[in-house]
Amino acid sequence: MISKNTIKNIASLRQQKVRKASGLFVVEGRKMVDELLCSDFEVDGLFATQAFLDGNGAGFAQAAVVSEMQMGQMSGQDTPPGILAVVRIPEQRQIAVDAPWVLALDGIANPGNMGTIIRTAEWFGLNDIVCSPDCVELWNPKVIQATMGSVFRMNVAYTPLPDFLSAQRQSGRAVFGALLEGENLFEMKEKAEGVLVIGSESHGIRADVLPHITHPVTIPRKAGSATESLNAAVAGGIIIAELTRLSPLP
Amino acid sequence: MISKNTIKNIASLRQQKVRKASGLFVVEGRKMVDELLCSDFEVDGLFATQAFLDGNGAGFAQAAVVSEMQMGQMSGQDTPPGILAVVRIPEQRQIAVDAPWVLALDGIANPGNMGTIIRTAEWFGLNDIVCSPDCVELWNPKVIQATMGSVFRMNVAYTPLPDFLSAQRQSGRAVFGALLEGENLFEMKEKAEGVLVIGSESHGIRADVLPHITHPVTIPRKAGSATESLNAAVAGGIIIAELTRLSPLP
Repeated sequence: MISKNTIKNIASLRQQKVRKASGLFVVEGRKMVDELLCSDFEVDGLFATQAFLDGNGAGFAQAAVVSEMQMGQMSGQDTPPGILAVVRIPEQRQIAVDAPWVLALDGIANPGNMGTIIRTAEWFGLNDIVCSPDCVELWNPKVIQATMGSVFRMNVAYTPLPDFLSAQRQSGRAVFGALLEGENLFEMKEKAEGVLVIGSESHGIRADVLPHITHPVTIPRKAGSATESLNAAVAGGIIIAELTRLSPLP
Repeated sequence: MISKNTIKNIASLRQQKVRKASGLFVVEGRKMVDELLCSDFEVDGLFATQAFLDGNGAGFAQAAVVSEMQMGQMSGQDTPPGILAVVRIPEQRQIAVDAPWVLALDGIANPGNMGTIIRTAEWFGLNDIVCSPDCVELWNPKVIQATMGSVFRMNVAYTPLPDFLSAQRQSGRAVFGALLEGENLFEMKEKAEGVLVIGSESHGIRADVLPHITHPVTIPRKAGSATESLNAAVAGGIIIAELTRLSPLP
């Protein structure tokens, strides 16, 4: 039997301060829990409704059965998927600073964008992501959900970008930055690997990061289009696709 | 003075059935209302808090002033931006069926994805979008918000895709479809313009649409990557960027 106190504690993991204090976060849904169980993350608790187990069977035999009402209280989703794991936040992973490509995120605030960028990066083989300290927290449930499982496999670290990028430049690396004024992405000839910086949804790449950009790059907009910008995750996806194509990963 | 009844009616526009019955929808936030007022959409009511007007001034002089509490009751957002417009839903626009590129959306269910795809299409000069009838409703507040204003300028129509695509094929047009098994996007040589079909987040392009795809296209995934798919809006963005680059719009 799950206690009322446990339910209350799990529900409170929707708050960042509680995640930070407890070192725990929550993963929900069949696909995400599947990915979790294949990862090296430490599962602290696994809960499922009987209806979920009846429909999804053997793979989740270790789950503690809870009622629909209990699941509704624990779940952060409007329609609880019926399976929920409590997971230990791992130590921050090491970034491979000399990976062919490193992604740097400057103040990404929207959890959906953050998760989507992580998912996209993994698709194209970028496994190392450096985030400015004010990027949305990696263990936010909406970030987790939007990664569709990539979060369990990628190296993501939070660190001040100016210092990181300065070191990268000093080791001779190209630092690409997605800007509204830069070289046409589709006409770039340079095939250097390096770092790609994606700026925040509202401010773009910030003043203290800009001086470190060695290769400003722009996604050309159709003449006459009235849009001011692209969504940060879409822009990131288009640039990653093109840069990794210019410079194929091993 | 705004009546309690008016506030209640505006709040109820969060529900699709009320939008449908009344022919009205809601737009919130400075940027979105700016774009709205520059469009040919018919504004039925404009409301702002004094704090918003003090900070944003003359451009919104025609707004009726409401209290923070009243705005909080009307607004669908957790943090009401302080300006809200009630707008008449226009008649469905005509799609230019012979535009160089037409986008077709097959069952896009996530409002953020829907809005982001519309925004991305406009950036690349695609102004005509055909949606399957089960795509999320265009006047959903989250769709509106994610378009960042593109919704006021684009031609978006809902119609069964098999009929539409069949007619397109009969007029000799290429029908590209984003699939997990198709020709490598970056190795396509064909420069035909035509229709691009993006499938839903969960099911991809559906069985009744698949036979109409003349050009299946795939975004290559890095060997060894464990991701199963890209986000629908990101995938759409990458393919639109590449296809319109292959075949520049006039």
